[in-house]
Amino acid sequence: MSENAENEKKAKVIRIKTKPYIVTSGAFHLKDIDTRDKQGLKKEDGKALLRRNREQMFEWQEKLYAENRQSLLIVFQAMDAAGKDGCIKHVMRGLNPQGTHVTAFKQPSSEELDHDYMWRINRALPRRGEIGIFNRSHYEEVIVTQLHNLIADQQYPEDVIDKHVWENRYSQIRNWEEYLVEQGYHILKFFLHISKDEQRERLLDRIEEEDKNWKFSAGDLAEREHWDEYQSLYQEAIRETATKNAPWIVVPADRKWFARAVVSQVVLETLEDMNPKMPELSKEEIRELDHWREVLNNDK
Amino acid sequence: MSENAENEKKAKVIRIKTKPYIVTSGAFHLKDIDTRDKQGLKKEDGKALLRRNREQMFEWQEKLYAENRQSLLIVFQAMDAAGKDGCIKHVMRGLNPQGTHVTAFKQPSSEELDHDYMWRINRALPRRGEIGIFNRSHYEEVIVTQLHNLIADQQYPEDVIDKHVWENRYSQIRNWEEYLVEQGYHILKFFLHISKDEQRERLLDRIEEEDKNWKFSAGDLAEREHWDEYQSLYQEAIRETATKNAPWIVVPADRKWFARAVVSQVVLETLEDMNPKMPELSKEEIRELDHWREVLNNDK
Repeated sequence: MSENAENEKKAKVIRIKTKPYIVTSGAFHLKDIDTRDKQGLKKEDGKALLRRNREQMFEWQEKLYAENRQSLLIVFQAMDAAGKDGCIKHVMRGLNPQGTHVTAFKQPSSEELDHDYMWRINRALPRRGEIGIFNRSHYEEVIVTQLHNLIADQQYPEDVIDKHVWENRYSQIRNWEEYLVEQGYHILKFFLHISKDEQRERLLDRIEEEDKNWKFSAGDLAEREHWDEYQSLYQEAIRETATKNAPWIVVPADRKWFARAVVSQVVLETLEDMNPKMPELSKEEIRELDHWREVLNNDK
Repeated sequence: MSENAENEKKAKVIRIKTKPYIVTSGAFHLKDIDTRDKQGLKKEDGKALLRRNREQMFEWQEKLYAENRQSLLIVFQAMDAAGKDGCIKHVMRGLNPQGTHVTAFKQPSSEELDHDYMWRINRALPRRGEIGIFNRSHYEEVIVTQLHNLIADQQYPEDVIDKHVWENRYSQIRNWEEYLVEQGYHILKFFLHISKDEQRERLLDRIEEEDKNWKFSAGDLAEREHWDEYQSLYQEAIRETATKNAPWIVVPADRKWFARAVVSQVVLETLEDMNPKMPELSKEEIRELDHWREVLNNDK
């Protein structure tokens, strides 16, 4: 049996339990999720599972696109070097790029700051039938913006920025996501959860390995000094915005292969749950097909 | 040896000559390209080649994205049922969706018609480091718009629409594409070339095969009646806009597997030619890494 075939066979029996990582309400502590968890799996098992899940995601996506009614919005948030880019690359490659839209949100431009914070987010939403992937998102606006109090430099009227501003934003985000769900969106919000030690190792890799040098940013080290504040804000944001219809998935991410397997598994289960169907013609339209068959058969 | 490994081995010796299909000047006749050409290859060879090319495209794309200086713009044009969607799906899946943007241009909206015809095209251009794929494009504006004289219903001042309007558009398109090349874009324009017989078979498939019914559109049959005019306009558009820097590739497309192999081969050769490189740090920046290494090693 070839290595691939063997891996495929194994993958059929391997299962990852996703439920322990799915947060749907405010009763949640970040520390309860072990960043090194791997559910006893081996790396090659995780990789085989990822490959199998990718194939199945591709098949579901075809139906989602053809059905053209529902949309799937996938948000990635994490500390620097937690593996957002790699996760998108390895889990989402294999999807049809026609129907998959990734938006990487960087520091807002001055045009973006001249609008409400959801303006650029709304413009990036996937269309019906599409899978939209946000690499960072509106959650930056309650995390980094809160941590560094960047809102003071944004173009808001003074009376908007009072002591309730973050509380208000959490409520705005909950309402916005609920609105999208009512519009036919499905929403998954992944937090790739790494330990401070693992982040150090990865930042060191970027220094030691020449082909990773270009990823190194001294700015990441400055943010690292705020590690505990970031963890606390992430926990707060997750608690405040985790709902049944727009859950957070807190993914153990110290092992890249395990994080990718978990993400693929959750995406696959969500697509199964959405259960998109190829559109069917009406009886009227089916009757018309007979006419068009005749037209074509006579056109030789 | 496993089937996959065997295919890979074969693919190493299989070569498709792309040069016969690449049009860089006005001396071109559509009839010179045989829609059924397959260069003596077998289907399984073409499929193995496609798989190998996809892997190599993925590797080049990583460098293109990291380099963040050049962009690749890929345009697909064709008659209905020629296989644009399938080609994008099978050739481009495997790319990292972060860095790949597909835009499918439909009939222009009223907002789009309230602007010049390049307005929506410009908005869809890939960023630096990205691969942008246009499923239909500005070429619709010299093909279908010319054929059905749709320009009369668009919001143009009367004096713009004179007898030179199409000639002007060809010149505008040449200039626009030349501008992009001067900005660091590489441009490939694929025409998937099928025969009228093959189109009939594929439209009949959409009638006969239930899971393809949803793709059937009576509108495609109406357009089919203008087959010869379309062919003549495509030849004109190709002649008028084929240049060394923005070539047309006229792909024999009666066999889907061959068309996909050709497209993947041309894209791969173009990426090789662009030869993007991972960014390198300056000597100054490399010296600074020593400092950051120390900071991280002390942060335990």
